[in-house]
Amino acid sequence: MTFTEHVEITGHLMDTGVLSRVLDDIREYGGDWVIEKIDVGRESGDMSTATIKVWCDDEDDLQRLLMRLQTRGVNQVDPGEASVEVAEVDGVFPDGFYSTTNLETRVRLDGRWVSVDNPEMDCGLIVEKSNGATRVYTLPMADVRAGMTVICGASGIKVTVPETDKATGSFGFMESDVSSEKPQAVLVRQVAEGMREAKAAGKKVLWVGGPGVVHTGAAPAMVALVHAGFVDVLFAGNALATHDIESSLYGTSLGVDLAHGRGVEHGHEHHIRALNTIRKAGSIKDAVDSGVLTGGIMHALVTHEKDFVLVGSVRDDGPLPDVYTDVIEGQRAMRAKLDGVGFCLMVATMLHSVATGNILPASIPLVCVDINPATVTKLADRGSSQARGIVTDVGLFLEQLAADLVPDYRSRA
Amino acid sequence: MTFTEHVEITGHLMDTGVLSRVLDDIREYGGDWVIEKIDVGRESGDMSTATIKVWCDDEDDLQRLLMRLQTRGVNQVDPGEASVEVAEVDGVFPDGFYSTTNLETRVRLDGRWVSVDNPEMDCGLIVEKSNGATRVYTLPMADVRAGMTVICGASGIKVTVPETDKATGSFGFMESDVSSEKPQAVLVRQVAEGMREAKAAGKKVLWVGGPGVVHTGAAPAMVALVHAGFVDVLFAGNALATHDIESSLYGTSLGVDLAHGRGVEHGHEHHIRALNTIRKAGSIKDAVDSGVLTGGIMHALVTHEKDFVLVGSVRDDGPLPDVYTDVIEGQRAMRAKLDGVGFCLMVATMLHSVATGNILPASIPLVCVDINPATVTKLADRGSSQARGIVTDVGLFLEQLAADLVPDYRSRA
Amino acid sequence: MTFTEHVEITGHLMDTGVLSRVLDDIREYGGDWVIEKIDVGRESGDMSTATIKVWCDDEDDLQRLLMRLQTRGVNQVDPGEASVEVAEVDGVFPDGFYSTTNLETRVRLDGRWVSVDNPEMDCGLIVEKSNGATRVYTLPMADVRAGMTVICGASGIKVTVPETDKATGSFGFMESDVSSEKPQAVLVRQVAEGMREAKAAGKKVLWVGGPGVVHTGAAPAMVALVHAGFVDVLFAGNALATHDIESSLYGTSLGVDLAHGRGVEHGHEHHIRALNTIRKAGSIKDAVDSGVLTGGIMHALVTHEKDFVLVGSVRDDGPLPDVYTDVIEGQRAMRAKLDGVGFCLMVATMLHSVATGNILPASIPLVCVDINPATVTKLADRGSSQARGIVTDVGLFLEQLAADLVPDYRSRA
Amino acid sequence: MTFTEHVEITGHLMDTGVLSRVLDDIREYGGDWVIEKIDVGRESGDMSTATIKVWCDDEDDLQRLLMRLQTRGVNQVDPGEASVEVAEVDGVFPDGFYSTTNLETRVRLDGRWVSVDNPEMDCGLIVEKSNGATRVYTLPMADVRAGMTVICGASGIKVTVPETDKATGSFGFMESDVSSEKPQAVLVRQVAEGMREAKAAGKKVLWVGGPGVVHTGAAPAMVALVHAGFVDVLFAGNALATHDIESSLYGTSLGVDLAHGRGVEHGHEHHIRALNTIRKAGSIKDAVDSGVLTGGIMHALVTHEKDFVLVGSVRDDGPLPDVYTDVIEGQRAMRAKLDGVGFCLMVATMLHSVATGNILPASIPLVCVDINPATVTKLADRGSSQARGIVTDVGLFLEQLAADLVPDYRSRA
Repeated sequence: MTFTEHVEITGHLMDTGVLSRVLDDIREYGGDWVIEKIDVGRESGDMSTATIKVWCDDEDDLQRLLMRLQTRGVNQVDPGEASVEVAEVDGVFPDGFYSTTNLETRVRLDGRWVSVDNPEMDCGLIVEKSNGATRVYTLPMADVRAGMTVICGASGIKVTVPETDKATGSFGFMESDVSSEKPQAVLVRQVAEGMREAKAAGKKVLWVGGPGVVHTGAAPAMVALVHAGFVDVLFAGNALATHDIESSLYGTSLGVDLAHGRGVEHGHEHHIRALNTIRKAGSIKDAVDSGVLTGGIMHALVTHEKDFVLVGSVRDDGPLPDVYTDVIEGQRAMRAKLDGVGFCLMVATMLHSVATGNILPASIPLVCVDINPATVTKLADRGSSQARGIVTDVGLFLEQLAADLVPDYRSRA
Repeated sequence: MTFTEHVEITGHLMDTGVLSRVLDDIREYGGDWVIEKIDVGRESGDMSTATIKVWCDDEDDLQRLLMRLQTRGVNQVDPGEASVEVAEVDGVFPDGFYSTTNLETRVRLDGRWVSVDNPEMDCGLIVEKSNGATRVYTLPMADVRAGMTVICGASGIKVTVPETDKATGSFGFMESDVSSEKPQAVLVRQVAEGMREAKAAGKKVLWVGGPGVVHTGAAPAMVALVHAGFVDVLFAGNALATHDIESSLYGTSLGVDLAHGRGVEHGHEHHIRALNTIRKAGSIKDAVDSGVLTGGIMHALVTHEKDFVLVGSVRDDGPLPDVYTDVIEGQRAMRAKLDGVGFCLMVATMLHSVATGNILPASIPLVCVDINPATVTKLADRGSSQARGIVTDVGLFLEQLAADLVPDYRSRA
Repeated sequence: MTFTEHVEITGHLMDTGVLSRVLDDIREYGGDWVIEKIDVGRESGDMSTATIKVWCDDEDDLQRLLMRLQTRGVNQVDPGEASVEVAEVDGVFPDGFYSTTNLETRVRLDGRWVSVDNPEMDCGLIVEKSNGATRVYTLPMADVRAGMTVICGASGIKVTVPETDKATGSFGFMESDVSSEKPQAVLVRQVAEGMREAKAAGKKVLWVGGPGVVHTGAAPAMVALVHAGFVDVLFAGNALATHDIESSLYGTSLGVDLAHGRGVEHGHEHHIRALNTIRKAGSIKDAVDSGVLTGGIMHALVTHEKDFVLVGSVRDDGPLPDVYTDVIEGQRAMRAKLDGVGFCLMVATMLHSVATGNILPASIPLVCVDINPATVTKLADRGSSQARGIVTDVGLFLEQLAADLVPDYRSRA
Repeated sequence: MTFTEHVEITGHLMDTGVLSRVLDDIREYGGDWVIEKIDVGRESGDMSTATIKVWCDDEDDLQRLLMRLQTRGVNQVDPGEASVEVAEVDGVFPDGFYSTTNLETRVRLDGRWVSVDNPEMDCGLIVEKSNGATRVYTLPMADVRAGMTVICGASGIKVTVPETDKATGSFGFMESDVSSEKPQAVLVRQVAEGMREAKAAGKKVLWVGGPGVVHTGAAPAMVALVHAGFVDVLFAGNALATHDIESSLYGTSLGVDLAHGRGVEHGHEHHIRALNTIRKAGSIKDAVDSGVLTGGIMHALVTHEKDFVLVGSVRDDGPLPDVYTDVIEGQRAMRAKLDGVGFCLMVATMLHSVATGNILPASIPLVCVDINPATVTKLADRGSSQARGIVTDVGLFLEQLAADLVPDYRSRA
């Protein structure tokens, strides 16, 4: 027996290659297809629309294929009403739960379209009714509780892909593949522009950083950017913060004497003692307030009352008292800071970049800078299709970025 | 003013280059030195002994330099008695606490040398006296409690570097630098030999693995090695276990249809549904017992009653119910499984390899296999000087390892 | 003013993404387009055809855009007749010369379509008439001579893209991106299958190799494959041959003692003396015939009377007497061996892989194996779109390949 | 039977690790040793001297071991007189020829020490007597002619390792391992300083570059450095020059529109047409003189009458008329430009960096900049022990370097 559905997709189908990826998806999920209709945008700026009949031998497979296609922006022609089931166990969704995309999403309930509050990928959708109002929001698996109403199957759901103006947008240039062979100076300028635009629109700039920011000598540049108001929130791990603090306390960072550019291999004592010092003070803020910590990135964030969320990992020493040792709680703390974010820069960290990519809506511009091409590729592979990658030296990149965004940065340096 | 100490080191000083690293350390910690005496091993197999006078302008700097030198196996000529202080706050060591190495360590207390129970780097040393007996053990910073007696300064402590017979030992060959240009077949054979030796000595083989084990198609090889008794403990994250389970439940793993070698990009539904399925079952073992999970690495471990410790990270979906979401608790769980380990193989994971390297005594042979040279380098940089690295394809490596260790592996495959 | 042309393309336009790349090309060459007509393959196996009107502001730009589009398999709807000009200077084409693709090509001359003899990218097309017959062949820039008749502009030319059966072909599986996370055992099996098919069809197997073949200990596997008849031609540089010979003469290879797996760093004397020994013998064959060289890859090739072309590079020591020191002559010698090749395997060399990719028709299956993803990416970027990449350890890969193709290989080893 | 020799080495034996490498060499060449005497530098600035007895079972092995040890700066205590033999065949050294190091070398002939003219590694030493004067010079294998007098065996030869003041020299900081985690701004400043020192001493600055210089958008920075007099000689291949010229002629470079930072994939027509244009002009200089080529790196070099040597490779299109297609002739042309060079910067090329490393005396400071750590490692592995590596983005690095060395560079940009 065969289970069939009609789906449609609108967009720059021809020149983005999305249609070929949609057809790949169908084949990979064991389905088959006929393109019923296609209105090709005749001219280079036009949108195209395709209507495709898809079918599978199994009802569940079809439902899952439909969810898969939604990550590409493909909706059912006649989505019907959403189905719901009630969660029976804490932390477990009903079997056929709808698995979310990171796109803007609407759900049809009782004949009306309800917007989903906070798009995030790989979550469930929870329906809450109170006082006649219906609210739908994403919830990660770990946070679902028995009794909650969860949307199941792919019916009754529409997603919208963010418009990216391929020809003229600030990030249009970055649409080609990850590469270390790009005119880097142009890229720096365009990231600076993206940050300025976000700030001008009253939005926050989110940074996600690894310890490489400190190792490459870029801490002064980042401090200048904090002072200048271009760092509103920082997501990081124990390592960035500890190396930054260690560098302020002892003038060193894991392996490098920053003042002389001379290597200090494995100065673990510095590292472990910096941790002990801050633990003794109580917290990073306490260390700043008591005059123990007088410089560096964390000091600048505290001084300017900027937010940071530090989430630990299994390889951590210490950790710093501010670090979330429970990673699920850490994810919650990160989610709580996403509101108002209008630009995200990820620098020199694969772990926290992927973690942030997981919870970030596709509508937020996202640039990932790393000397390792794998970090950038990984991010896109995991579903953050809006991610633009720059393979370059983090230290020189932040140096240039500060020079662009902070008046008199160079003369001061 | 100048603070001085005499230190000595014995070993293959000339042909291992350790002496030059010791002198580098002194300079990097702001100290200076005179080599007072050196007995050079005349012949190629002989040991050498050097006595070095070291000094710093600051007493604390000297103490910390002496701790640093102990990571190289350098002891004070006249170590004297160890000093102790009492911890005043939970989770914080006294200021001048002795920071441990991963070497065999003895402490002189009340005129007698006491062996430290469980060498681990970057910890404190806790002294416990009861019934006239004195016990000294390493304790990570997070676990110290107010009132505990902590060793401070570098006096009264001796470390012993494990003998590595450079000329003939099984792992002698691996002493050169990390490289992808090595005769790999020889390396496979020698790792197999290391595992056989450990088992013959009644020791456990510890594996540390990343999801690449599954992606490269090596799960069947690893399952065969579990069956054959060469996997006693597995340290991993949520990813390896989930991808393995996903592969068993749906025949896929993030991005690859293993039966046909055809790519299945971003099949996140599989991933997220596998997590939900196991969460519903209660645990991996419950899923095996109830017949939900019938194959793969985790299934083999459960069936053979082997231990595994899964520790989460901030980028995790789900996670599986067996995963420690608190990383510090996860570290404790890992430590609890180190007893009796005689060989450690790390495969395709930087995060969990570094985490395991942090807690493993230097006396345990350690081989790290990854296609990415940075993983292997990182491990050695962090202080796991016993680590031997093999830069190769993980899938083919495990395939060859199984062929070597498991009779009839190939004919069965 | 605007210059316009109608072009068409037929193929799996939707599911290969080729149409979006065509439209990208038009934009990048400063042109614009309207899709005049599109017949979409309705079902997943169907071909689609698109007719596109393209225009530029400049006649020359349009001609060059049309040439560019031909690399994608896009032809003019009404190609007309080809134009020709006569080369005026040796080694220089006329200004508007047609720059070739590596696709099957036909040229319309005097109202008839003539097939091009030897497709090769980035060459010119030479027309030769004698005895009433018209012959058209590709010629590299360096080989053109004054007086030759050269095709200019994009008119009168049609190309044909090789059929790749995406669903079932041996290499269908490899169509996803370069990745180290693939089930490698499956890939080995499919390369073996490709070689068997080529031999069964009476075709030659071409190998392109770097010194990594020797360093990774894979020489015995490759020797076994020569004996078994799976190496008909080898393209390499001075390095592979010298390291192979050095290894046979002295049991070593740059940095590795293969018998013990122990590193021999920088054993340049071995290297330089091996070169001198063969130079003294006269040639590699002379060294084999006179009993100086008794083992290794080059010995096996000589013994089995297989062809090899060694082309030098600026970093060479020596070089071996068999090495072409003039790279343009070397390219000619390589071209002369392409006839009858039905499968090409590139192993552990970027330089010679790109060189071979430059001269190989797109119709020959091509697999590139390297531990460095950049080699594989580079190859595809340069236009060898048929290239399939495998990022893995070369030593283990060739070991497995020999085990698959050579009966009793393992038992003999 | 056993063949014995006494050797000695003087230097910072303890803190450079050279002694351990010497002992490794002895073992790797199948020899054995006794350290007869060692005078350790007591204080950190002191030199040490060691006298070592080495022996092998074979006379030839011993001679080759002695040559090997000379690459470390180890000389025979009693070197005696050099032996010579006459070359019998063109391009072939006598069997036991002395294989050179890249160190300052003296040869004892007729009871007197003669300095070798031009140190270069992996060559032979030719003795020429005329008018009572004796001259000894290095000669590559390919250039030896029948009848020349060649030094054989290791006797009668002394080498001198260049003094590197580890503590204070400009490049002291770079002595640690290759790493992307270094404070890059400091490194830029120190390279600038090295260039200024060379120029102040009346020496030439040699650049070795790959096409990445153009791809990363660094051509304007390099042009500014040519104008400012910091590029005296350029060694490169066909690719750098062609991409630079292509970029000047068409505003593009393989894959990147530099003005807009937008990718232009595979614009091979530009590439191949740029080659044809310069071939038509006759040479790069002719193209500049006739007004065809009006900008870019090659234009700047021609305008300022700076030297460049372009040596081809097997993957070249064209090539440019200025390119040496014979690699051995190309090496000769490079050697001819080494006179007076006082600083060498290698940027973004493995092939030409290794080629230059092969012919450069160890006394010339050498910095290698690449985003790929393997390039830097390879260089050191091949024997250029003076090479200092910087793993960073080439575009941003040259941008910073120009900002440091060229007054008003930024304001002009």
